[in-house]
Amino acid sequence: MERRSFLKKAGVAAAAGAVTFGKAPAVLAAKKYKWKMVTTWPPHFPVLGEGADYLAQWIEEMSDGRIKIHVYGGGELVPPLGVFDAVSQGTVEMGHGAAYYWAGKMPASQFFAAVPFGFNAQQMNAWLYGGGGWDLWKELYADFGVVPFPAGNTGVQMGGWFNKEIKSLDDYKGLKMRIPGLGGKVVAKAGGNAVLVAGGEIYTNLDRGVIDATEWVGPYHDLKMGFYKAAKYYYYPGWHEPGTVLECIVSKKAWDSLPKDLQAVIETACWRSNLWMLSEFDAKNNDSLRELVDKHGVQLRKFPDDVLRGLHKLANEVVADLAASDPASKKVYASYQAFREKIDPWTDISERTYMEALRL
Amino acid sequence: MERRSFLKKAGVAAAAGAVTFGKAPAVLAAKKYKWKMVTTWPPHFPVLGEGADYLAQWIEEMSDGRIKIHVYGGGELVPPLGVFDAVSQGTVEMGHGAAYYWAGKMPASQFFAAVPFGFNAQQMNAWLYGGGGWDLWKELYADFGVVPFPAGNTGVQMGGWFNKEIKSLDDYKGLKMRIPGLGGKVVAKAGGNAVLVAGGEIYTNLDRGVIDATEWVGPYHDLKMGFYKAAKYYYYPGWHEPGTVLECIVSKKAWDSLPKDLQAVIETACWRSNLWMLSEFDAKNNDSLRELVDKHGVQLRKFPDDVLRGLHKLANEVVADLAASDPASKKVYASYQAFREKIDPWTDISERTYMEALRL
Repeated sequence: MERRSFLKKAGVAAAAGAVTFGKAPAVLAAKKYKWKMVTTWPPHFPVLGEGADYLAQWIEEMSDGRIKIHVYGGGELVPPLGVFDAVSQGTVEMGHGAAYYWAGKMPASQFFAAVPFGFNAQQMNAWLYGGGGWDLWKELYADFGVVPFPAGNTGVQMGGWFNKEIKSLDDYKGLKMRIPGLGGKVVAKAGGNAVLVAGGEIYTNLDRGVIDATEWVGPYHDLKMGFYKAAKYYYYPGWHEPGTVLECIVSKKAWDSLPKDLQAVIETACWRSNLWMLSEFDAKNNDSLRELVDKHGVQLRKFPDDVLRGLHKLANEVVADLAASDPASKKVYASYQAFREKIDPWTDISERTYMEALRL
Repeated sequence: MERRSFLKKAGVAAAAGAVTFGKAPAVLAAKKYKWKMVTTWPPHFPVLGEGADYLAQWIEEMSDGRIKIHVYGGGELVPPLGVFDAVSQGTVEMGHGAAYYWAGKMPASQFFAAVPFGFNAQQMNAWLYGGGGWDLWKELYADFGVVPFPAGNTGVQMGGWFNKEIKSLDDYKGLKMRIPGLGGKVVAKAGGNAVLVAGGEIYTNLDRGVIDATEWVGPYHDLKMGFYKAAKYYYYPGWHEPGTVLECIVSKKAWDSLPKDLQAVIETACWRSNLWMLSEFDAKNNDSLRELVDKHGVQLRKFPDDVLRGLHKLANEVVADLAASDPASKKVYASYQAFREKIDPWTDISERTYMEALRL
């Protein structure tokens, strides 16, 4: 505040000074910020890491270099899953990842990333920006001195790679699948064995039969991982992550140290990043999908209706369990569900009916 | 360029000056810009005009007041349909509207707003940002000294208000409907009478039977217009405008006069506006839809499959006619169609299949 009122006075002086021809007016040199952004992604990871890189670049461009942000890949400065703590403790000013990575600390965070059979990207944005979701997210992170921003979306992901066909819900019994989070809980409820495998080890595990199946992201990323060499069937839709939100997080202390204009710069860059990522995924996914099917002979499979119906029922139970397990989750779930009752009928007669009309 | 290298030198002087305690370093006071933005909307028109207001506000905030933009409603400074010319001629620096309003001048502009049975919002963004669409748009407007930015989206609109039921394509014969642009051409091909009626006169015309039907936007706007008092049936989906893009346009001369940081500020504010508008529509539409149905007894009707199939066929003809009619349209259409072949199969197994899965 003080700094800004000082600047205002300096502005008056500057205006006065401008009267004197040829004399440069004296104003305070703008304060510069050198920030660090740690991320949960491998360095420059396609779309997700690139999105973090762009975010830093846009902020630097808009601020004319007043904020310079050095972006670190996961593990370069802190481990990928140490991002939230690093920002919370003020070790770094900024982080980039996804809210469900902090489920151990705050189960409710999962609502701000992905809910099985939950909102798709467009609905998620409507809830976050227009339905009070973002406010609840800010409230949840405030206890940790962290300010969250929606900063990306994957859109509907793929259902995953399987080495056996899924013909009924019974086929999940005993299935060893790499699937984290709430989706993993649904698979476990179906009798499967949901295991955690780090990104770099999934391919080998799948290839050697240590796991029978894995989910990852969508065609663009899955092609790069080479899963088509280790699994036969590629299933859709990704019911477990129908519109995963990526987040940018800022240390509250660092945030409060910024003048209002730079706060607006960061916030607006995050909106851009949100839209950029989804558009980039949508623009890239199909080329990769074609390559997988046409060049690598991948067999695309839709989950049978009965399986989807069964998983949906189990997902509702998993999410209700989560809401019953802690007060914050209960509060966020109530908002999520109330908005859902509002937006679902609208999505139904707008986006869904239109998509169907195209294919009549 | 010159100005920026000057600033760099000043920066060096400032750093040196900082050594002397208590002496404010001398730098050039930032240049200020007072701009005008004319719009095609009534002043502060819900979502669309509000979006223009926010756009100006975000730009001012991010630039710390270095750009101040006065927003004018349609007719306040220039007529709504005079917006493009005013920006092109440099009378004002900025405009806000939709590209299809300039179809008389550039038929190809319609591809950057809405195509009947064309892209929805998410696909449109993917094409514009990730599929080369925006580059073609810039090329099209360059001849007029105008730089375009995607700055909003309505999402799938409603099909419109009708005083008779549409049971077959034959019911369009002789139907007097207020429906502009390419959608109007489709209705005309179906034997209807597509008429133009200014926004303020639609209600009266509908009420007095001068027209039998009208389209407008979606529930949020349609409720405010009171159409439910003058028409019985409210049809969906809005096949004629499945994801209408709103635009921000900037005079090339004004754009070139800005330093790079302020250019980045404007561009990024437009991305934010794009996402904000769609989210706002989605968050608001359903409350209004409920009010229309529950409180005002509006009869919701889905266009029958046969009608949609027939309109789709006619729409393809209308768009092909447009592409055949001028070289610019041909070029843009080729890009639009090529991207469509890429994205449709992806949308099909991601968003569409997921939406269906939710309702099994």
